[in-house]
Amino acid sequence: MRIFGVDPGLRFTGYACVDADPDQPHVSPTLVEAGVFRLPAGRTIADRLVELDADLTEVLARLRPGVAGVESLFSHYKRPTTAVAMGHARGVILLAIRRTGARIIELKPTRVKKSLTGFGHASKDQMQEAVRAQLNLRERPEPADVADAIAVALCVARTWEGAGVESPGAHTLGPL
Amino acid sequence: MRIFGVDPGLRFTGYACVDADPDQPHVSPTLVEAGVFRLPAGRTIADRLVELDADLTEVLARLRPGVAGVESLFSHYKRPTTAVAMGHARGVILLAIRRTGARIIELKPTRVKKSLTGFGHASKDQMQEAVRAQLNLRERPEPADVADAIAVALCVARTWEGAGVESPGAHTLGPL
Repeated sequence: MRIFGVDPGLRFTGYACVDADPDQPHVSPTLVEAGVFRLPAGRTIADRLVELDADLTEVLARLRPGVAGVESLFSHYKRPTTAVAMGHARGVILLAIRRTGARIIELKPTRVKKSLTGFGHASKDQMQEAVRAQLNLRERPEPADVADAIAVALCVARTWEGAGVESPGAHTLGPL
Repeated sequence: MRIFGVDPGLRFTGYACVDADPDQPHVSPTLVEAGVFRLPAGRTIADRLVELDADLTEVLARLRPGVAGVESLFSHYKRPTTAVAMGHARGVILLAIRRTGARIIELKPTRVKKSLTGFGHASKDQMQEAVRAQLNLRERPEPADVADAIAVALCVARTWEGAGVESPGAHTLGPL
């Protein structure tokens, strides 16, 4: 099963793709690819969204994941202005993923952190180290946005196995 | 000059298209088309965004506006959750418009209201009546989302004329 993970951000959006075997829950998923989309600072928000959509669509067409985890934003921001701006990028991400037919699972950041480290408020360092250890990587993934995206994909893999169902499904994303 | 206007909403997104002649600022723009995209309530947010994108892309391909006004959201919402949800839809709207090459102008709701009625806090009724009168329509546009979208397009037409420049331009949209 091929799983995509995304960590939406204002300047950097991390993404990752892992392969997991639902029939072998004790075998670690393997990392297929991970990286970061950098949104150029000097351009308008609309131009950045066009670039994010094009980059993400290219990666999804190449990797063809069947399911994708996306971090929720709701608990992140206290200022509506920031929440709206983050919402813009996340809306485009949800659109690009869903358009491919992949299922989408929304995950709270605290749940992802707890799944990987046992601690819902793990630091960026702790998350990078947990991802490194669980995937048997030689070095910690950099920047932290990439580690977070890998963590999301690993958390989806675990949720899927743990739930013992074929599809935890898109319905985990609440209505508008 | 063909101008598109959008009023992003959680359930209903109003849109409108008018033709204006920049060389004849005292001639009222003519209404080409206006309507509303209804986002089905029972579906996931991702599925709604896919539908909004498809509907909007179809309308834009048919009408081919050169410039589009989009209401800003920043001053609307006090709750981050609502701001994020609205941001999702607005991000998809900005993407669909900018992908066609049209310029985007962001307008504060108070500016649109003031431009049409002289009063930045006009009621929905007042806005519907102002749109009816200025376009010489026989009836008020319904629902209010449609009137708001027409008002945005009319405000862009006026801004363009008043500014006396070829392009007030996409730079009016702030960075992420």
